[in-house]
Amino acid sequence: MPQILIKNGYVVSMNPLRQVFAGGDVLVEGDKIVAAGTVPAELIKHDAEVVDASGKIVMPGLVNTHVHLSQQLGRGLGDDVDLLTWLHERIWPYESSMDLEDSYISSLACCLELIHSGVTTFAEPGGQEVDGMGRAVEEIGLRGILARSTMDCGEGLPAKWRESTDYALRKQEEHIRRWHGQANGRIKVWFGLRTIFNNSDELIKRTKDLADKYGVGIHMHVAEIDEEVRFAKATRGHTTVEHLAQLGVLDANFLAVHTVWLTEKEIDLFLLHDVKVSHNPAAAMRVLGFARVPEMIAKGITVSIGTDGAPSNNRMDMMDEMYLATLIHKGRNLNPKILPAEKVLEMATIDGARCLLWDDAIGSLEPGKKADLIIINPRSAGSLPLHDPIANLVYAMHASNVEASMCDGRWLMRDKKILTVNEEEILDRVQARAAALVKKAGIVLPDRFPVVKVR
Amino acid sequence: MPQILIKNGYVVSMNPLRQVFAGGDVLVEGDKIVAAGTVPAELIKHDAEVVDASGKIVMPGLVNTHVHLSQQLGRGLGDDVDLLTWLHERIWPYESSMDLEDSYISSLACCLELIHSGVTTFAEPGGQEVDGMGRAVEEIGLRGILARSTMDCGEGLPAKWRESTDYALRKQEEHIRRWHGQANGRIKVWFGLRTIFNNSDELIKRTKDLADKYGVGIHMHVAEIDEEVRFAKATRGHTTVEHLAQLGVLDANFLAVHTVWLTEKEIDLFLLHDVKVSHNPAAAMRVLGFARVPEMIAKGITVSIGTDGAPSNNRMDMMDEMYLATLIHKGRNLNPKILPAEKVLEMATIDGARCLLWDDAIGSLEPGKKADLIIINPRSAGSLPLHDPIANLVYAMHASNVEASMCDGRWLMRDKKILTVNEEEILDRVQARAAALVKKAGIVLPDRFPVVKVR
Repeated sequence: MPQILIKNGYVVSMNPLRQVFAGGDVLVEGDKIVAAGTVPAELIKHDAEVVDASGKIVMPGLVNTHVHLSQQLGRGLGDDVDLLTWLHERIWPYESSMDLEDSYISSLACCLELIHSGVTTFAEPGGQEVDGMGRAVEEIGLRGILARSTMDCGEGLPAKWRESTDYALRKQEEHIRRWHGQANGRIKVWFGLRTIFNNSDELIKRTKDLADKYGVGIHMHVAEIDEEVRFAKATRGHTTVEHLAQLGVLDANFLAVHTVWLTEKEIDLFLLHDVKVSHNPAAAMRVLGFARVPEMIAKGITVSIGTDGAPSNNRMDMMDEMYLATLIHKGRNLNPKILPAEKVLEMATIDGARCLLWDDAIGSLEPGKKADLIIINPRSAGSLPLHDPIANLVYAMHASNVEASMCDGRWLMRDKKILTVNEEEILDRVQARAAALVKKAGIVLPDRFPVVKVR
Repeated sequence: MPQILIKNGYVVSMNPLRQVFAGGDVLVEGDKIVAAGTVPAELIKHDAEVVDASGKIVMPGLVNTHVHLSQQLGRGLGDDVDLLTWLHERIWPYESSMDLEDSYISSLACCLELIHSGVTTFAEPGGQEVDGMGRAVEEIGLRGILARSTMDCGEGLPAKWRESTDYALRKQEEHIRRWHGQANGRIKVWFGLRTIFNNSDELIKRTKDLADKYGVGIHMHVAEIDEEVRFAKATRGHTTVEHLAQLGVLDANFLAVHTVWLTEKEIDLFLLHDVKVSHNPAAAMRVLGFARVPEMIAKGITVSIGTDGAPSNNRMDMMDEMYLATLIHKGRNLNPKILPAEKVLEMATIDGARCLLWDDAIGSLEPGKKADLIIINPRSAGSLPLHDPIANLVYAMHASNVEASMCDGRWLMRDKKILTVNEEEILDRVQARAAALVKKAGIVLPDRFPVVKVR
């Protein structure tokens, strides 16, 4: 199998000792890492491709644990409006108008942004038309977990989405059979639960049974808005997490997203059941509230970072999200020492891998793990000088510093150029497809400023 | 005089009607805008240089109302430490060790980042070695207001900085005579007051007299940390702003920065005296607290945006700062409608110009104003599709979308390439100079992860 030797970089391994190798190397063979940091000469084949990483940072690809691939064409549809307008007049009409091709183009567009910003693995919480998403991920070369948006109850749902519990589960089992383990194992499928507003207890319980049967995880929006707490109490008699505990679904394979409005007791339930958390700083700030992330981490809960979807953030950019994660909690706690750069980097790499139950294969540069890595060039007006490289990486660098990306041993991007698909062609289709979709959905946005049409 | 016709862009004029011209033009002659939006054919000379802006946004250059040019070499020196460590063990040793050449290189480095992120005008609150800053700004071509870091009292100051009130004022008058109005009027000099901790009442009062005499403004850090409120009460008997009001310095030419810990009464005093505010979202989140910006704006106070300095933020990037400004206040108020994109864009352009008392010449694209403009290319995976261009501009686009910058009628950057100085050469000098400076200052940073030196 062919080898690639990435040479003389600042290798941030995120291995169990968290070693950084200055002037270090990484040897890749096929889809795997053979050695990282110091590479014994005898392991290197004479025809290994050598990549010079002098002056550059080599590190594990970032893990985005919550991103809506099929919402990418909706960027800008939900800005500066209240939550009900966002949901009922913008996002539901948009999502329920999507077809397979829309989902495919939206997923390609989102994956492009993910690659440019250093992500090699993502988790989709439940999108539209999973086959479109799967096709996109297969082609573009990322590693990802797909899920289907699953709702079997709740008020005001678009007609297209009214489906039985049986149907919802059957569709997901189909997706698992069709996509789980595909693309050399790059693609996995998990079960999705949208929210407690739109999921019956029967669906929730049977989802857990099936997830265990198939050995996969469950991805659910939890304690997202304060209204959810009231709703859960009124309809279930408990807060969301307490209710999920009673239903027996809290477990190590449960990924809870947002988790803004948790009580002390709910945080303890997470710890007790080893529930994983995806924190989405920008979406939280924009519309949800401030999650108590440092407190959860201090207790021992595994917390990772996600971007959410383009109509909620609007940057699907983990380089920005790392920066935001540290800012938001320092501000909320008035403590500049909280969530230091090195912890945020863990959240975006190895802890992300743990949240996706994939840390046996990704999240760090270690022998035997999958060759998922990025090369970052710190040489830019926005990131020099380098006194504290890890801090600059988290606080100052941008997607524009991410120069190369490898996933499963295959280069997805070099010199900022995407190698697996035709980016320019996709961008053309994104704009056209998005405009048509919004028209079909009947969404009309007000002008923010008076527009004079000159040409 | 030569003309430049920028043609067929999405011209976001920020004029009094806030008109956007779709397929609009901007005609520049010399250092001025002749027409913006629709350009009558008879105004265009036959030899005008024509620049095609199809598919691009043309808008006023951003105004950064608070940025420490001479702190740029200190990026990464103050991350994840408490405020006293930040000031006494990192920033003061760094700043007090600077010489003229350090200030020059630091200023060039900072200006590069400003240009790349769309800034054409900035205000320096008071840096080291004003002559170094002035030389850099003159060469690189930006518009800016300089000031000198001014401290005549306070505990723990480095020996180099102990100076009398007379000396502090005399030095600033010298700077005004040397730099104010230089470079075709691109450079102005204001008076700087560092903080109430380090400025005597005599200095504050005489600064106001001199600022009025020279017709310039005063740039001061105000109500930055809660400790300042206690200090002001203990030493002056009032909060900072009440005390400044008693000293008679609150006025339309007073720019107050940060203003995190203001009382209702202090906000009313700002309004009464038409004091201008520079809000620095990232620095506030990172270390200071949450300023009540929407409340100030609702009252009628002019609030602009600043990045602060590289050891406090660490991105001197107004594209990010706009995004942060809207996120932070939506989160703090749990109201996604607060600080909409169009208001944030005003803060970063025309309101910024007002804060710098320069809105007669900059801040919007209008006939007769200075030709300070930027061209933004929205075509990228991180910003398409465009359903709501103003929202995407503020929420999704990055410095990497800023393609061209013109200041005073002169191109500073085209196709992301800096035209006025040699960027690569400056970046080389930045890293070398910064390392030497930190060594001279005796600053040693702990490693965040164990570092293995392979080569």
